[in-house]
Amino acid sequence: MQTLTVDLGDRSYPIQIGQGLLSQPLLAPYIKGRQVMVVSNETVAPLYLDQLKQQLDGFQVDALILPDGEQFKDLSHVNSIFDALLEKRHNRTTTLIALGGGVVGDMTGFAAACYQRGVAFIQVPTTLLSQVDSSVGGKTGVNHPLGKNMIGAFHQPQLVVADTDVLSTLPERELSAGLAEVIKYGLIHDLAFLKWLEDNMERLRAREPEALAYAIYRSCEIKAEIVAQDERESGVRALLNLGHTFGHAIETDRGYGDWLHGEAVGAGTLMAADLSARLGWLSQQDLDRVRRLLEVAGLPVKPPMEMTPERFKSLMAVDKKVLDGQLRLVLLKALGQGVVTSDFPTEQLDATLSAGDQLGQLA
Amino acid sequence: MQTLTVDLGDRSYPIQIGQGLLSQPLLAPYIKGRQVMVVSNETVAPLYLDQLKQQLDGFQVDALILPDGEQFKDLSHVNSIFDALLEKRHNRTTTLIALGGGVVGDMTGFAAACYQRGVAFIQVPTTLLSQVDSSVGGKTGVNHPLGKNMIGAFHQPQLVVADTDVLSTLPERELSAGLAEVIKYGLIHDLAFLKWLEDNMERLRAREPEALAYAIYRSCEIKAEIVAQDERESGVRALLNLGHTFGHAIETDRGYGDWLHGEAVGAGTLMAADLSARLGWLSQQDLDRVRRLLEVAGLPVKPPMEMTPERFKSLMAVDKKVLDGQLRLVLLKALGQGVVTSDFPTEQLDATLSAGDQLGQLA
Repeated sequence: MQTLTVDLGDRSYPIQIGQGLLSQPLLAPYIKGRQVMVVSNETVAPLYLDQLKQQLDGFQVDALILPDGEQFKDLSHVNSIFDALLEKRHNRTTTLIALGGGVVGDMTGFAAACYQRGVAFIQVPTTLLSQVDSSVGGKTGVNHPLGKNMIGAFHQPQLVVADTDVLSTLPERELSAGLAEVIKYGLIHDLAFLKWLEDNMERLRAREPEALAYAIYRSCEIKAEIVAQDERESGVRALLNLGHTFGHAIETDRGYGDWLHGEAVGAGTLMAADLSARLGWLSQQDLDRVRRLLEVAGLPVKPPMEMTPERFKSLMAVDKKVLDGQLRLVLLKALGQGVVTSDFPTEQLDATLSAGDQLGQLA
Repeated sequence: MQTLTVDLGDRSYPIQIGQGLLSQPLLAPYIKGRQVMVVSNETVAPLYLDQLKQQLDGFQVDALILPDGEQFKDLSHVNSIFDALLEKRHNRTTTLIALGGGVVGDMTGFAAACYQRGVAFIQVPTTLLSQVDSSVGGKTGVNHPLGKNMIGAFHQPQLVVADTDVLSTLPERELSAGLAEVIKYGLIHDLAFLKWLEDNMERLRAREPEALAYAIYRSCEIKAEIVAQDERESGVRALLNLGHTFGHAIETDRGYGDWLHGEAVGAGTLMAADLSARLGWLSQQDLDRVRRLLEVAGLPVKPPMEMTPERFKSLMAVDKKVLDGQLRLVLLKALGQGVVTSDFPTEQLDATLSAGDQLGQLA
């Protein structure tokens, strides 16, 4: 087992990464009171809930099973967590445990942020995407029909436990979706890691435990470093949104749950790279590398054909990164070097949005 | 105009108190972006919304009018604030302005806490209760069918503007409800203020501006002092809940909106005093003073006759002040000296809960 620390003063917490962690007694030291509410979903609970509960002997353990899917990440399902907590009379010293992917983690964290104005929670992410991204950093929240993650809170967990064993049951599409976020870290911050991913993508898709453990560790390390610098995203943390502004527009257009979040981020990442190349920051060769890596990871490399540039712009206008009406995007100054900017000509953005099958082709 | 500061480091903010403040340009210096969403209700908006808007020339000003009443203080109405913000494309730099009583302030503050994971807001309280209590201190939130204020956040405003002129349109019952919270400050913290209230209650009920301004100023001063010591209620701040645990049980039992919050707190305050007297901390004479002051303020001094001790205890068991199953109450060690304690015999609590018409009578 390897341990990383997210360094946030009195809100610091460890991320534990390794094989077989779900069957080790890692949680109890981080639970302050006597009450625990495990929140999971219909897919994950039958696989891992009993295993987790065996760690929690001596606590009042209640569990709530939510339906599985991004389309259920809304206020009404967070309210069902409040219902369960109140029906079981959980008090301010309760600890919520999120056992599932990003949707379960985001909703459970948000419920913990708001229940009695804030209680403790622990992340036990069971997808690659949540292990490398959403479980770390304290962003919690739900979607609104008019925009993704528009309602939420910053609320840091007490502990994150990433057991690589649980990835063995992950569907192929979900694994690829997680790889989109792993690739992101290389693109925005670490060219050497990007190179490692190019060399090891087949091993990752074959789920070799050492390869997965390294990818998760390095991803969390980069994320922890960035979050420690800028917990509330007033600056550098926005880099973690590479591909996300385009991706959120795709998710909102499709209705949540059709495209997976990571798939939309994958297509969005190539759109960001395409625009960066149009601005002269990436070469055609760089662009080819990005496209190839996304393809080898099993990700879509173009947005839905039905989405017009106008539709994209309308959806992107409500993105959280819009400041006083000005759209800001995460682009790439070079491979391994992300930048947040609103300094791009509209025509170049239009060219990217209308590239269609030619996305990623400069000529 | 008098100005108080709530001293919370980089979250400090002023409370401005005086006559005619709504028509002075006090808000603009505290609005960072270009967008403003005023949230009000059907009763207050026709009286004061236009006046407020005149201060906001040069901003994008949108307004949302909610129905009036505690029974609407729920997640679905907070969601209607999110709808309005997204429909009008408000971004992270927006400022929400709560123009109304405690319900509008609590919901608007909670919406501000959660919209895009946190935006700015300003409190313009229009009831006595919200001017002396709920608009100050950053507690925001909504009710759940199983418990009052169970869902919420700590989120401090940028500014509080308490215009005493708006109290001229306040219904009698609402004025009395606000006086319950004013009396609370005297009882928990300041015997001299309690004495002042006994001497000036008639002037307050006659809405004499100087008397009101002094009562609001001193109430906010005490609250600001306590909140600055304990923003997140891990200790002394709990004193501000005198009468509230009993009161919340009454509100939940009656269904929100039947008894006003301040009315329930009024009855709850006498229950707390009654139990304090049974513990030997208050004399019969002290108890008579509390009862008389509540009566002169126009407040109910007994709980609904239908509520059994069992019903009370069942509802109080979900109170936020329950720790590991142990009920904690704010009681009075003496007049002017509140204490948070779970150290009372069950039989004494039962005696208070079943006192009925004899509440406040020791013999």
